[in-house]
Amino acid sequence: MSNHAKRYSLGIDYGTNSCRSLLVDLDDGAEVGTAVFPYPSGKMGILLDGRDPNVARQNPQDYLDGLEFVVKKALDQARATVAGFDPSAIVGLGIDTTGSTVIPVDAKGTPLGLQANFKDNLNAMVWLWKDHTAHEEAAEITSLAARIRPQYLAKCGGTYSSEWWWSKILHLRRIDPAIFASAHSFVEHCDWIPAVLAGETDPAKMKRSVCAAGHKAMFNAGWGGLPDKEFLAALDPALADLRDRLFDSAHTSNVRAGGLCEEWAGRLGLKTGTAIAVGAFDAHMGAVGAGVKEGTLTKILGTSTCDLMVSSSNRQLADIPGVCGIVDGSVLPGYFGIEAGQSAVGDIFLWLVGHLVPDTYGADLDAKFETMQQAMTKQKPGATGLLALDWNNGNRTILTDARLTGLLLGQTLHTTAHEIYRAYIEATAFGALTIIKRIEEYGVPVQEVVNTGGLAVKNATLMQIYADVIGKPMKVARSDQTCALGAAIFGAAAAGAGDVGELQSRMTAVRETIYNPIPENHQVYSELYALYRDVHDAFGTADWNGNLSHVMKRLLEIRDRQRCA
Amino acid sequence: MSNHAKRYSLGIDYGTNSCRSLLVDLDDGAEVGTAVFPYPSGKMGILLDGRDPNVARQNPQDYLDGLEFVVKKALDQARATVAGFDPSAIVGLGIDTTGSTVIPVDAKGTPLGLQANFKDNLNAMVWLWKDHTAHEEAAEITSLAARIRPQYLAKCGGTYSSEWWWSKILHLRRIDPAIFASAHSFVEHCDWIPAVLAGETDPAKMKRSVCAAGHKAMFNAGWGGLPDKEFLAALDPALADLRDRLFDSAHTSNVRAGGLCEEWAGRLGLKTGTAIAVGAFDAHMGAVGAGVKEGTLTKILGTSTCDLMVSSSNRQLADIPGVCGIVDGSVLPGYFGIEAGQSAVGDIFLWLVGHLVPDTYGADLDAKFETMQQAMTKQKPGATGLLALDWNNGNRTILTDARLTGLLLGQTLHTTAHEIYRAYIEATAFGALTIIKRIEEYGVPVQEVVNTGGLAVKNATLMQIYADVIGKPMKVARSDQTCALGAAIFGAAAAGAGDVGELQSRMTAVRETIYNPIPENHQVYSELYALYRDVHDAFGTADWNGNLSHVMKRLLEIRDRQRCA
Repeated sequence: MSNHAKRYSLGIDYGTNSCRSLLVDLDDGAEVGTAVFPYPSGKMGILLDGRDPNVARQNPQDYLDGLEFVVKKALDQARATVAGFDPSAIVGLGIDTTGSTVIPVDAKGTPLGLQANFKDNLNAMVWLWKDHTAHEEAAEITSLAARIRPQYLAKCGGTYSSEWWWSKILHLRRIDPAIFASAHSFVEHCDWIPAVLAGETDPAKMKRSVCAAGHKAMFNAGWGGLPDKEFLAALDPALADLRDRLFDSAHTSNVRAGGLCEEWAGRLGLKTGTAIAVGAFDAHMGAVGAGVKEGTLTKILGTSTCDLMVSSSNRQLADIPGVCGIVDGSVLPGYFGIEAGQSAVGDIFLWLVGHLVPDTYGADLDAKFETMQQAMTKQKPGATGLLALDWNNGNRTILTDARLTGLLLGQTLHTTAHEIYRAYIEATAFGALTIIKRIEEYGVPVQEVVNTGGLAVKNATLMQIYADVIGKPMKVARSDQTCALGAAIFGAAAAGAGDVGELQSRMTAVRETIYNPIPENHQVYSELYALYRDVHDAFGTADWNGNLSHVMKRLLEIRDRQRCA
Repeated sequence: MSNHAKRYSLGIDYGTNSCRSLLVDLDDGAEVGTAVFPYPSGKMGILLDGRDPNVARQNPQDYLDGLEFVVKKALDQARATVAGFDPSAIVGLGIDTTGSTVIPVDAKGTPLGLQANFKDNLNAMVWLWKDHTAHEEAAEITSLAARIRPQYLAKCGGTYSSEWWWSKILHLRRIDPAIFASAHSFVEHCDWIPAVLAGETDPAKMKRSVCAAGHKAMFNAGWGGLPDKEFLAALDPALADLRDRLFDSAHTSNVRAGGLCEEWAGRLGLKTGTAIAVGAFDAHMGAVGAGVKEGTLTKILGTSTCDLMVSSSNRQLADIPGVCGIVDGSVLPGYFGIEAGQSAVGDIFLWLVGHLVPDTYGADLDAKFETMQQAMTKQKPGATGLLALDWNNGNRTILTDARLTGLLLGQTLHTTAHEIYRAYIEATAFGALTIIKRIEEYGVPVQEVVNTGGLAVKNATLMQIYADVIGKPMKVARSDQTCALGAAIFGAAAAGAGDVGELQSRMTAVRETIYNPIPENHQVYSELYALYRDVHDAFGTADWNGNLSHVMKRLLEIRDRQRCA
């Protein structure tokens, strides 16, 4: 582009099963190095408990081992492919993680799960976002807030989730008081990694993410930060005490969390003092890497999905019932971040293919998916006669209820695995449409949809079904790794290399292939969506009242019509 | 037993996928010869249409080829195992078949499907009981009868089915008038085989079964036999004309349909003139072979189920809404036969294992079933968190609605195939309980349950679940082939060898193993049944009004409790 010296930034993206690095050129977003590290502990990186399917924990050591591995590999790649590459041209590091992924730490900021005396106790480990053990505590927090602090709920969709910060901490206090007592403080995964890199060991001084604090910990500058002590004491006096050992400010990710400490500079092969950005959640940074701006909905389609929009902080924004969170600055500085999502999308397909698809479709998961997708493209919308609810992992938006489960109806004695796969894809698309309708009803128009994540990139069948169901063109972000790209953009911003919007306009783009809705398919899906909403509301909302005897008959009518069409 | 000469009877049982013979000793029901013939045509004996999953036809040639094969083989066996066995000691033959399985025939009683010029037309073939193409005609017949002949509906549960005689004939008239015009008359499969054996070629003289006529063709002596011409003409004038070429009397199966004709005596190796009993449906004769009497519910557990009771014809019996039929003499002479049933039971399990169970459970269907059953026995009732509706092939009793489909709910990301198998077994047990409750509500107490059919004999896991769900001991009939045994009993009765009750008391029994309900399991299943009924009524009845938001949460509570128990 120009003659100035090349500058780079590193994004580190911690996902559910692995972490990855992305080294990018600040001029044009060119990706010059990347590596992946699957977490070695547990089952695909998740520590499970056979007696309770709600348990999902992680080993913090995996995060540190992965960090070193993916950074070094990315540097090796850059050295191999970019003539004269010099790691000292890396101006900043940004970090994104899953969340609310909560780590109990001691007074020196060390996770209890790294300590030998706790290593066999799952409760001392990292409480992964999709741990659902705290559903009773979530209900209790929701109910208390509804009674005495309704403003707390208004910003998180009306229901506090079992996936979130306080539910998990309160549940730990209840089920394992000894571990709770050993925890001096708690940090989100996205706050711990920047602290490690910056050499910050005092939990009180670790720079906390407004994204994590605002979306998960009921933090809001408008009411003085974290929930007040009276509220916390009503849950448990120990939480009120804990408040003093947490934090009283939170930051957007263009803020510098610190400079890279000597130890980690040595371990990673980077310059001491390199800017470390305040962390944030994967989806939020992914939205930035996908080019989010006003009017653009970014959908991160992975094991679960996260749907993000922004709306200028200068304009009034209504609370949106059932939307996971509205937090000033959680995506872009100067904008409200609006976060919605689906608790399981890719996870549902993985469950299906892993548990219910016979080997006639192929010898491994990839072959099975491929065969099913080929079989599916021969069928018209509605020709399966099936309808599913995408609730195998609960419903995040718009019902914010983890105590919901999957549903499939319309099976005959001829229903095949690939028809069921299609029904589940459609169900996730109906769930996506339900989110869009809710956001638009509350005055935030969706002018563009940009998708990112593994499914957006790899599954053209799914993307066309999404376009047909939602009735809007589905665009796909250029980068395969928008979360890490977003993290890198924040790394650069924290280093003072530009403001976030300016960096986005240089470093992000969408692909040429756009999935446009096919009008006749959209028409059929509109009929099916009405049935989905009937079943959704009947099983998902307490105030629905009605009858469902039309559902199977309408599905059969549509099936018979579409099979003949 | 005594010194008298041994006498035998032959039962021929035509099932959905094969036919079988059973040669029995009249003294004690000892089984001295048996053989099976899988129908060679189509897919497992069923002619399908890839464009319409409702189509299920059969090739009449399979019936004739099977007849000769299974009788000869049974005689060979008897000769090999019984010293001095002489086929002339066979006093009678009884026949049972599926139904309503309707055969268009010409004026000489020959099925159109046997004729070269029709051989490629599925509509000229036998319309198997589970053909569901005539659902619109069934609705039309129900609606017309409700308006002008409500008495017709009262005896068949309030809804006329797409599986039945007039629906199929009317549908044929509508979709293929040429084949309809070529059909001089129509016969049930169970009436055609006795006519073939007796050498009767005039459709008007073929002895018709009151079981078939009463349950499927709205035949009732109380209103002068078949539906009147005015009613039939309102459906189609051609049906009113057809009435003259059908039949005006119908008989119980202790009546002689004729004597074995010379041609078939030669083909089978039996004595000319051997008594041939009037035919009946498999389930009805199976109930007799299982020892049905007042207070005993016999359940034939196969691909579908048939539930049969009897109630003395001397006593008043209320019409029972949703029960497939109440017909005087359809099971035992002198008793009302009460027929209920489930459209798919074993068929649902076969669908599941054939389409949705991965090879990790085993290399073939049997191995998969075995592994799933072993895995299942480790789980307590309710521990799956799942709930299913057993409607993959519609609902026969108590909803009499073929336009219903399956439903499974409660899936998480951990749900396994064997948990789903268990949920479907439970669903069929809930369906069975719904039938028992309905019959008892209308004044017919169920004092004993005797099961028969492949699942009763082979699947101990299922039988225990049935006992636990239903809350009554599950007995199993001694014979593996109660339908053929019942047919043999009627063959003997038609030959004058005794009355049916007397023959039953000698020739039928139950096994020593009885599955008794486990009280704590029954308690859990009572909770689950309440949820099943909510979902059943919400999707299955037009007058239900309510909300289902408790269903998934209750299932999770029960699951969590049972997993810890």
